Amino acid sequence: MKTYSPLPVHDLKLTAGPLKRRQETALRATIPATMAKTIETGRLDAFSLQWKEGMEKQPHYFWDSDTAKVLEGMAAALSLQPDPELEREYDRWVDCIVSAQQPDGYLNTYFTVVEPGKRFTNLGIKHELYCCGHLIEAAVAGWNFLGKRKLLDAMCRYADLLCRTFGPDGERRGWPGHQEIELALVKLYQVTGQERYLKLAKYFLDDRGVEPNLFVAEKAGIYEELLKYYQADVPVRKAVDAHGHAVRAVYMYSGMADVARLTNDSELLAACERMFQSIAEKRMYVTGGIGSSFYQEALTKDYDLTNGSLMYAESCASMGLAFFCQRMLNLTGDSKYAEILELVIFNGVLAGISLKGDAFFYTNYLEVDDNLQCYNSGATVRQEWFGCSCCPTSFARFLTQYQQFVCSAGEGELRLNLPVDCHIDTTLPGGAHVLADVAGGYPNRGVVTVTIREAAEFALSLRLPAWCRQATVRLGGEVLYSDEGGKYFTVKRRWQAGDQVTLELEMKPRFLHAASQITSNAGRVALKRGPVVYCCETFDDDFPVREFIVDTATAPQETVVEGLPADVVGLLCQGWQELPACRDKLYFEGEPTRRPAQLIAIPYSLWQNRGPSRMAVWIRE
Amino acid sequence: MKTYSPLPVHDLKLTAGPLKRRQETALRATIPATMAKTIETGRLDAFSLQWKEGMEKQPHYFWDSDTAKVLEGMAAALSLQPDPELEREYDRWVDCIVSAQQPDGYLNTYFTVVEPGKRFTNLGIKHELYCCGHLIEAAVAGWNFLGKRKLLDAMCRYADLLCRTFGPDGERRGWPGHQEIELALVKLYQVTGQERYLKLAKYFLDDRGVEPNLFVAEKAGIYEELLKYYQADVPVRKAVDAHGHAVRAVYMYSGMADVARLTNDSELLAACERMFQSIAEKRMYVTGGIGSSFYQEALTKDYDLTNGSLMYAESCASMGLAFFCQRMLNLTGDSKYAEILELVIFNGVLAGISLKGDAFFYTNYLEVDDNLQCYNSGATVRQEWFGCSCCPTSFARFLTQYQQFVCSAGEGELRLNLPVDCHIDTTLPGGAHVLADVAGGYPNRGVVTVTIREAAEFALSLRLPAWCRQATVRLGGEVLYSDEGGKYFTVKRRWQAGDQVTLELEMKPRFLHAASQITSNAGRVALKRGPVVYCCETFDDDFPVREFIVDTATAPQETVVEGLPADVVGLLCQGWQELPACRDKLYFEGEPTRRPAQLIAIPYSLWQNRGPSRMAVWIRE
Repeated sequence: MKTYSPLPVHDLKLTAGPLKRRQETALRATIPATMAKTIETGRLDAFSLQWKEGMEKQPHYFWDSDTAKVLEGMAAALSLQPDPELEREYDRWVDCIVSAQQPDGYLNTYFTVVEPGKRFTNLGIKHELYCCGHLIEAAVAGWNFLGKRKLLDAMCRYADLLCRTFGPDGERRGWPGHQEIELALVKLYQVTGQERYLKLAKYFLDDRGVEPNLFVAEKAGIYEELLKYYQADVPVRKAVDAHGHAVRAVYMYSGMADVARLTNDSELLAACERMFQSIAEKRMYVTGGIGSSFYQEALTKDYDLTNGSLMYAESCASMGLAFFCQRMLNLTGDSKYAEILELVIFNGVLAGISLKGDAFFYTNYLEVDDNLQCYNSGATVRQEWFGCSCCPTSFARFLTQYQQFVCSAGEGELRLNLPVDCHIDTTLPGGAHVLADVAGGYPNRGVVTVTIREAAEFALSLRLPAWCRQATVRLGGEVLYSDEGGKYFTVKRRWQAGDQVTLELEMKPRFLHAASQITSNAGRVALKRGPVVYCCETFDDDFPVREFIVDTATAPQETVVEGLPADVVGLLCQGWQELPACRDKLYFEGEPTRRPAQLIAIPYSLWQNRGPSRMAVWIRE
Repeated sequence: MKTYSPLPVHDLKLTAGPLKRRQETALRATIPATMAKTIETGRLDAFSLQWKEGMEKQPHYFWDSDTAKVLEGMAAALSLQPDPELEREYDRWVDCIVSAQQPDGYLNTYFTVVEPGKRFTNLGIKHELYCCGHLIEAAVAGWNFLGKRKLLDAMCRYADLLCRTFGPDGERRGWPGHQEIELALVKLYQVTGQERYLKLAKYFLDDRGVEPNLFVAEKAGIYEELLKYYQADVPVRKAVDAHGHAVRAVYMYSGMADVARLTNDSELLAACERMFQSIAEKRMYVTGGIGSSFYQEALTKDYDLTNGSLMYAESCASMGLAFFCQRMLNLTGDSKYAEILELVIFNGVLAGISLKGDAFFYTNYLEVDDNLQCYNSGATVRQEWFGCSCCPTSFARFLTQYQQFVCSAGEGELRLNLPVDCHIDTTLPGGAHVLADVAGGYPNRGVVTVTIREAAEFALSLRLPAWCRQATVRLGGEVLYSDEGGKYFTVKRRWQAGDQVTLELEMKPRFLHAASQITSNAGRVALKRGPVVYCCETFDDDFPVREFIVDTATAPQETVVEGLPADVVGLLCQGWQELPACRDKLYFEGEPTRRPAQLIAIPYSLWQNRGPSRMAVWIRE
C-alpha cells in the first residue's frame, strides 16, 4: 500500500479563491479576536498561577486547551504573514505558559492552583491529558512553523513525566476522558524521533476500554452507561460503529490512524476503516456534520439525522472529521476519504464561522426556523465566544493551516486532493522538485489549470471527485480522460516549465435524496453544485423556507447573490409557496393552496452572513 | 355565567364501550399491578419509618405521592366494584400511612427518615408539598368514594400544620417546586368546608413568582433561568403563555381554575383562559399530548411540536390537561374546553397504557421508527414501572374515575360532555332527578341514544363536537337540529320515562393538515375519525411507515383490525410505497419510484398492542 503525507508546512500557499479569502480573514479577524478573548477571560493569565480561592476568573479545567489552540493558530499565522507585533505576543504567551511548568515537568493551570495535589486523579472528567495534548500540538506548530523550541522543550519534559507515570514504562494505568493526547504524542514523536511518545500514544489507545475498565474501576464519576459516550465501552479495536461524543470520537480515530500507520498495525487500520464507514454511510449529515444529538453532543445511531433543534453537528467535530479523513487518505490513498474530506472542508466546517471571521457556531443546524426550540444557547446566531469555547479556538488553528489538506506527497507523486488556487514549491519523497501553480477559483468554478513552473519528472495525480458525472483532464489540448469521477487520475511524465494540465469538472446543480431511513428528510431534497451543499435562506420580509416546495424538474439557474462575495454562485430555484388552508388553527381540514414562487439557494456555509435568517438544507419537493 | 359541576362520584356509571372496557381493565390489572409495585419497591413500607442510613430501598422524596395515587385508585375501584380483600388492603395502607404522622401533623417519609430536621427547607426540589397534595387527594377520595375518614382526618391535621407554617396565617413564605397541593387543598376545602384550606391554596398561587422570588432568594438549588421550568418566573396571573414542565403547568392551572371559581376571581380566570389558548392553539400535539421536549419535560415555544425522539407528551401531562379542561368547561360552560377534553381523553391519555392495563408509556411519541434515537429509556415499549413512576400511578387513579368527565350538572341542566355508554342516576342542582341511559358505542360509533327512565323536568344539553360537520339531534322521530357541531344543543322539557333523544354524529374519516409553522408536519397529514386520532402502524414484515405516502383523494375504508377489540374501526388507506432510487447510500441523485400500497390506520391510542411496532401519526401525502 502506497502511503502519502501532507506537504511540509511551508511548501504550499493558498493564492486566491474562497479558501484563501477565509484564511486572510482568519489572519485579520479570527486570530486577533480569539487572542483578545483568551486574554480577557483570564485564560492566558491562568498560567501566572496567581489565582486563589475566592478570586474571580477561576481557571476551568479545559482553559489551557483554548490558550494552546489559539497559540497554535498564532504560530501558523506568523508563517503565512510575518508580523513583529504578533510574534512578540507569541513569545510572551509561550513565556507565560512555560513559567507555569512545575519542576517535574507538570504543566496544567487548573490542577496547579484550583485542585493542587489532585493531579491525575480524575482523568475521566477533567480534561487534563486533553489540555496537555493541545499544548503539545501548539508546541509542535511553534517548532514546525517558526523553528521556536521553548514550548517544545517544555512539552517534552511534560510528556516525559507522562511516560514515567502511565503505561508500560510508567507506574500506573490511565487514559483520558477526552481524547486528543494520542494524536498529539504522535506529532511530538514525529518532530523529536523519541519512540517513547509513540509508545505512550499507542498505550493510551490500546488500554482504553480494556477490562477491568479503568473508568468503572476508578469510579471517576463515570457510570457504565456513560462509557459509550467516552468510546470506552469496548477496546478501540473492537468497536463496531462510531458512537458517543463526536469530537472525542474523531480525535481518537485520528490518533488511531496515526498509530496504525507508524506501527503498521493492520488491525487498528481495520478499526479506523470501520469507524469511517459507520460515519460516512450511516451517521453523517449531507454537509459532513456529525453528532446528531445535542444530548452528549454525540453520534447516536444509524440514520438518526434530524435537521432541527435536536441536532448538533458541532464545528469542532467537523474539523476533527477532516483530520481523520486526511490521515486515512494519506495512509491508504483511497479517494473515498478525499470525498468526505472535501465535503467537510467546504461545508460542515465553514458554516461554523462568519465571513467576517469573528463569530462562530457551536451547533450547525441544517434547519433553522422561528418555531424550533434550540437546546444550545444562542445557537442560531453566531457568537463571539462561548463559556466552553472550543469551536472559536479550533477555527483559529484550523483556518490558518487550511493548506495542509490541499495536496499530498508520495514517492515521486504529487496528489492534488482539493484543486483550489495555490502555489506549490516542494520536494517529493524520492527527490523530484515540484514548482507549480493551481488556478481556477474552485470550488465555485469547475475549470482548474495546473501550470508547471519548472522541469521535473514526477507523477501528478488529480482527484476526480465522485460527485462529478463528467470530469475531463487535458494536457495542453489533448484529452487524457473524460468520464465519471471517483478516483485519482495520474499523469506521470517529465514535465517542462509551462506545461499545463486542465481539469474540467461539470458543475451542474444536482438534487439529492436521502436514504429513506432518515425519516425527517422524506419528501425533501438537498441541492449541491460541485462539492458545495446549498441551503435556502429567507429573511423577515420573505415567506418562511418551510412553505417553499421546490420544482426539481426545473434546473436551478446560476445567479449572483447580493451581499456575498462576487464569485459565489447562487441558484435560483423555481417552485411553489404552500399557503395553509387555515392560518389561525393548529390543525385543520382542507387542502393547502400553492402559488408559484422562487427562492435563491446559497452555499450552506455562507448562511446568516446577511443578517439573522431562517434556513433549510432539506427542501420539500 | 352559569357554572357546572361534575356529578357526585356515585351518580354515573360506565356501562359499555371502550371507556368501560378500559375501566374494567384498570380494576383487573392496573390497580393490582401498581399496588404490587408500590409494595415491592418499598414505597408503602417507607411509612413504617424503619429505614436507616445504609439500608436498601431508601425512600425517595417523591415516593409518598406514588403510594397516595395508587391508594386513591383503590378507593375509586372499591366504589365501582366491592372487593373485601381489596378493602382490607386499603385499610391496611391507610393505617400504615397514618402511623407515620408526627405529633404535630407532619407526614412525609423522606424528611422523617432520610433528612430528619430538614423539613420545609427545600420546597423547590424535594416534592414535599407535592406529596402532601396527593395524600390529600387520596384522603378526599377515601371519604367521597367510601365514606372513610381516617386518612382525611390525618391530612386535615397535616394541612393545619401547613396553614400554621405558610402564608398569611403562617409563619413564613413558601410554595412548592412541583404544583399539586393547590388543587388538593381546594378538594379538602370542598369536603370539610374549612376556608383556611382554600385560603392557603390561593396563597400558594398568589405568592408564586412574586418578587423577591422565593426560589431565587432561598437559593434552593434553583437558578433564575430555571424559574420558567417551575412556572415561577412571573406571578401566575401575569403569565402570557404556558411554559415549563408540562405536568407542573397543568396541575397548577387546574388549581388556578378552582380558586378562580371559588373566589370569583376574574383576573385569575383570565389567566387560565390565556394558558388554555396558549396550549390549544400553539403548543399541543394533534393527540392532545403536551410538552414537546424531553429536556425538562416541558412546554417550549409556539409551534415547536416535533414528532420523534425529541418530544415528550408525558402521560401525566395529558391527564393533567384533562383535569384543567374539565375545570374550565365546568366553570365557563364553553364547549371549546370540551373539545380538548375529549381529544385528550380518547387519544393522548389512552395511548399511555396498554390494552391489558399493566404497561405504560411515560413519553408518548407521535412517530416511532427504528432509526430515531430515544432519550427516555425504554420509551418506545410500554414498561411495567419506572424509577420515577408517576405515570403508572396516575393511570391507577385516572381510569378508575374516568366517569367524572362524562357529564356535568348545572342548575336544572344535565350536560352530556362525552356521549359514551353510561347509566345516570343523579339529582341536579334545583332538585330534578335524572335517571337515564346513554348507549351507542361512542367514540367508535356515532349514533348515540339517550333514554330517559323516569319522568322529570330538566334541560338535557348534548355536546355537538366541533369536529363534526353534520350533527343531527332527534327527539323520537323529530329532527331538532341538523347542522355543524361546535356547541351544546339543549332540549329543555318535561321528560317522560321512555323518551329517547338520538344524537347522530357523522363519523367520516378526515385528513388534517397542521399549521405550516410546525415544520416537521409539512407535506404530511393526520387522520381522524370522530374524536379519534389515527396512526399507521407497521411490524417487522411490513415496509416501514416512513415509506408510505397516503392518497388523500381516496377515502379510507372502514375495516376490522385483527388483534384489537371487535368494535375498533380500522381505516384502510390507499397510497404508495416510495422506494429509494439507491438503497445503499446515505445521499444520492435520482428519483425515488413509487408502487401502489395500502396501510391500515388504527386509533393512535391502541398502537403497540399487537407487538413491538413502528408508528407514525403524521403521514406523507
